[in-house]
Amino acid sequence: MQHFLTTDDLSLATTKTLIQRAQDMAATPANFETLARHQQLATLFFEPSTRTRLSFTSAMHGLGGTVLGFESSASTSTTKGESLIDTIRVVSQYVDIIALRHPQAGAAALAAKYASVPVINAGDGSHLHPTQTLADLTTIDQFKHRLNHLTIAFAGDLKYGRTVHSLVQALMRYGQNRFIFVSHSALKIPVTLRAQLAAQHIDFEEVADFSAINEPLDVLYMTRVQAERFDTTADYEAVKNSVQLTPAQSHLLAPTTLLLHPLPRGHELPTSFDAWPQAHYFDQVKAGRFVRMALIDYLLTQNH
Amino acid sequence: MQHFLTTDDLSLATTKTLIQRAQDMAATPANFETLARHQQLATLFFEPSTRTRLSFTSAMHGLGGTVLGFESSASTSTTKGESLIDTIRVVSQYVDIIALRHPQAGAAALAAKYASVPVINAGDGSHLHPTQTLADLTTIDQFKHRLNHLTIAFAGDLKYGRTVHSLVQALMRYGQNRFIFVSHSALKIPVTLRAQLAAQHIDFEEVADFSAINEPLDVLYMTRVQAERFDTTADYEAVKNSVQLTPAQSHLLAPTTLLLHPLPRGHELPTSFDAWPQAHYFDQVKAGRFVRMALIDYLLTQNH
Amino acid sequence: MQHFLTTDDLSLATTKTLIQRAQDMAATPANFETLARHQQLATLFFEPSTRTRLSFTSAMHGLGGTVLGFESSASTSTTKGESLIDTIRVVSQYVDIIALRHPQAGAAALAAKYASVPVINAGDGSHLHPTQTLADLTTIDQFKHRLNHLTIAFAGDLKYGRTVHSLVQALMRYGQNRFIFVSHSALKIPVTLRAQLAAQHIDFEEVADFSAINEPLDVLYMTRVQAERFDTTADYEAVKNSVQLTPAQSHLLAPTTLLLHPLPRGHELPTSFDAWPQAHYFDQVKAGRFVRMALIDYLLTQNH
Repeated sequence: MQHFLTTDDLSLATTKTLIQRAQDMAATPANFETLARHQQLATLFFEPSTRTRLSFTSAMHGLGGTVLGFESSASTSTTKGESLIDTIRVVSQYVDIIALRHPQAGAAALAAKYASVPVINAGDGSHLHPTQTLADLTTIDQFKHRLNHLTIAFAGDLKYGRTVHSLVQALMRYGQNRFIFVSHSALKIPVTLRAQLAAQHIDFEEVADFSAINEPLDVLYMTRVQAERFDTTADYEAVKNSVQLTPAQSHLLAPTTLLLHPLPRGHELPTSFDAWPQAHYFDQVKAGRFVRMALIDYLLTQNH
Repeated sequence: MQHFLTTDDLSLATTKTLIQRAQDMAATPANFETLARHQQLATLFFEPSTRTRLSFTSAMHGLGGTVLGFESSASTSTTKGESLIDTIRVVSQYVDIIALRHPQAGAAALAAKYASVPVINAGDGSHLHPTQTLADLTTIDQFKHRLNHLTIAFAGDLKYGRTVHSLVQALMRYGQNRFIFVSHSALKIPVTLRAQLAAQHIDFEEVADFSAINEPLDVLYMTRVQAERFDTTADYEAVKNSVQLTPAQSHLLAPTTLLLHPLPRGHELPTSFDAWPQAHYFDQVKAGRFVRMALIDYLLTQNH
Repeated sequence: MQHFLTTDDLSLATTKTLIQRAQDMAATPANFETLARHQQLATLFFEPSTRTRLSFTSAMHGLGGTVLGFESSASTSTTKGESLIDTIRVVSQYVDIIALRHPQAGAAALAAKYASVPVINAGDGSHLHPTQTLADLTTIDQFKHRLNHLTIAFAGDLKYGRTVHSLVQALMRYGQNRFIFVSHSALKIPVTLRAQLAAQHIDFEEVADFSAINEPLDVLYMTRVQAERFDTTADYEAVKNSVQLTPAQSHLLAPTTLLLHPLPRGHELPTSFDAWPQAHYFDQVKAGRFVRMALIDYLLTQNH
């Protein structure tokens, strides 16, 4: 059974195929609107994530399939003490494919072990969020026409931000990418990620703020500092505005720079940038819908 | 981009067309069941309203389309601090049309400014609820065969009841309608509405209770006094039963009078009236489903 | 109007037809996937039950129909004080069939009185849960090829467990079944059920634990002790592990014994039994989906 738990589950060739297919689907959606007819997707969201849930739903509808599920653990049988494993085994009897969002790292891998249908990891705690990464890759490919030879700055919460971890790991698989990590000292990338980068001799740098960047960027990837990850409000307040894009930093945005953000955003990315041609975060949203369509179709086809 | 934010967004001619089309759809639903095939509606309900949400969903299904969304802000990313504007821009990437319910007056107009798909106002605070008004107009037209030359009494909460405000404003556009407003002094129509009526020389009267009415009514439109609009329980208790339909007032219901109510109801409309031939509030519900179908189809067609 | 409020609403012949049809649907689902096209099911869940709700949804999708509804009373208009009767009359205008889950015994029967479309009882308090019973009957029939001449042990919470009450009543309609009830003295079957069994001279026995069983079982039907039914935590703790299946009781499971459980489970049924060939509780889940398909199709066809 082929699942999608991390971006590593897809070879570079398959990833390339999915990205191309997502772009084809976005261009002519009518050509794909019956591919999953009479098939069912379960969106099992043990923690709320409206955007991701709606993206999966829209994707499945776009393939002509149907969707069922729940949007938070509050209204599930887990309140009756049911285990994730039992839920997965039950829902496997109802649907053809499952998208799982869960607060615990490793939940998707556990689910995949017991599911009799393909499982897509729609985010497991602060661990991974690989379909967001596919959306990011698709957007970069769409506007830069390559996934290698890129200089990419990541800014904001690099410690807890799983979209950053997933995207860095995905981009490490392509040659000659250079990473610049911009964050408050309390929000630097995890030790394990740093070790991975070093072990593979990947070109990266860690800086405290935007003023340290004086080279042209292909991508500036902003992230939100998430209040819910901090122990105290004071800890959060101390760092929340540490990396913020303001007109003073607009030199970072060359005409060919992509300004990306996985959303939702906070103060780090003012809406005044929305009108800039470099702003592509709503294109990321669109790419997310279509690459999820491509992924669902791929998994349904592989496992049939 | 054509939206539907207030009933004024539709010309009288278009309103008439939609009302007629809703009646056709109710008569022969099978003729319309693939009009929105492969199209998607988002029901974004930032406050719960089961009836309205299910009505929109049923309408979209009746056109062969699909639906996604959320039923209250509790489980949306707004809890992560996302703005309405960003939510709308995101969801615009997922669907072909949006129905928005929001607790703040003006939310739908704001959403329409940023949406790249048509927006339907499914209720914004105590401001407007224009698809309820379309349902009311469709019901009146269905049973009275006209929207002018009507004597209409509104009773109950005329201060906060947005269905009343919307319907009065809609009926002001048709000639020779006379309004009688029946309410406790604490629940009278807003000053602004009174000024509008006066400015347009529309025939209206405000009375304290049903005993002041001694003319035949074409329509008696009842509304519920909503506890949640009052500052204190005592304020609510003081007025909640101020205007109540009882057998003693049954002289108000001539054989040709339509008894309407937007539901849900409280004590003001006892279930003993349900069996009366004048009771048409469940016909309003049915009209609501079909006029929403007509409206969705109209907006999808206009904007294609 | 034909509803499905209790298993008694179906004759033995119709029950047999539905069970057979469910098995046909499970075998070749593609033959049935457009039977309810353009028809709508409402899942009105006044108390959460994810598994049952998803089962109905999956079933309706499997017939090509669409689904709308709510998953708990928290987000419904009942919080505005709307009565169940009004909700049912409203929703009758939106859909072709209703599945109702409600915490109060008798709610489904009340709903059926006012609905203008068929109503399926998806569980009413501790009263009945008849579609679970259909799932149980379908599973037993599938693996034992008969519904009579069975020795069936029920274990766990026999006092509050509505799936037990419903299944016993259903199996009483078939000849020569023998029941063994295994429970703590505080969780014995209700007096009314005992009286029914006695009045019909049905062979049954009540025992305190598994050690009292020394005859071959056709079916061992386990149930969970539900903490939420007890007044105090202490009362619950006293009995929660009173009847538990452990390796020491594995002599109860002959090669031809069916081990069933309506799920969710607690400690009474350890996951170590999942790999046993006698374990059929996930087959029950699958049977539940397909017999609900058969039931929905039957009611839609009957009432057309």
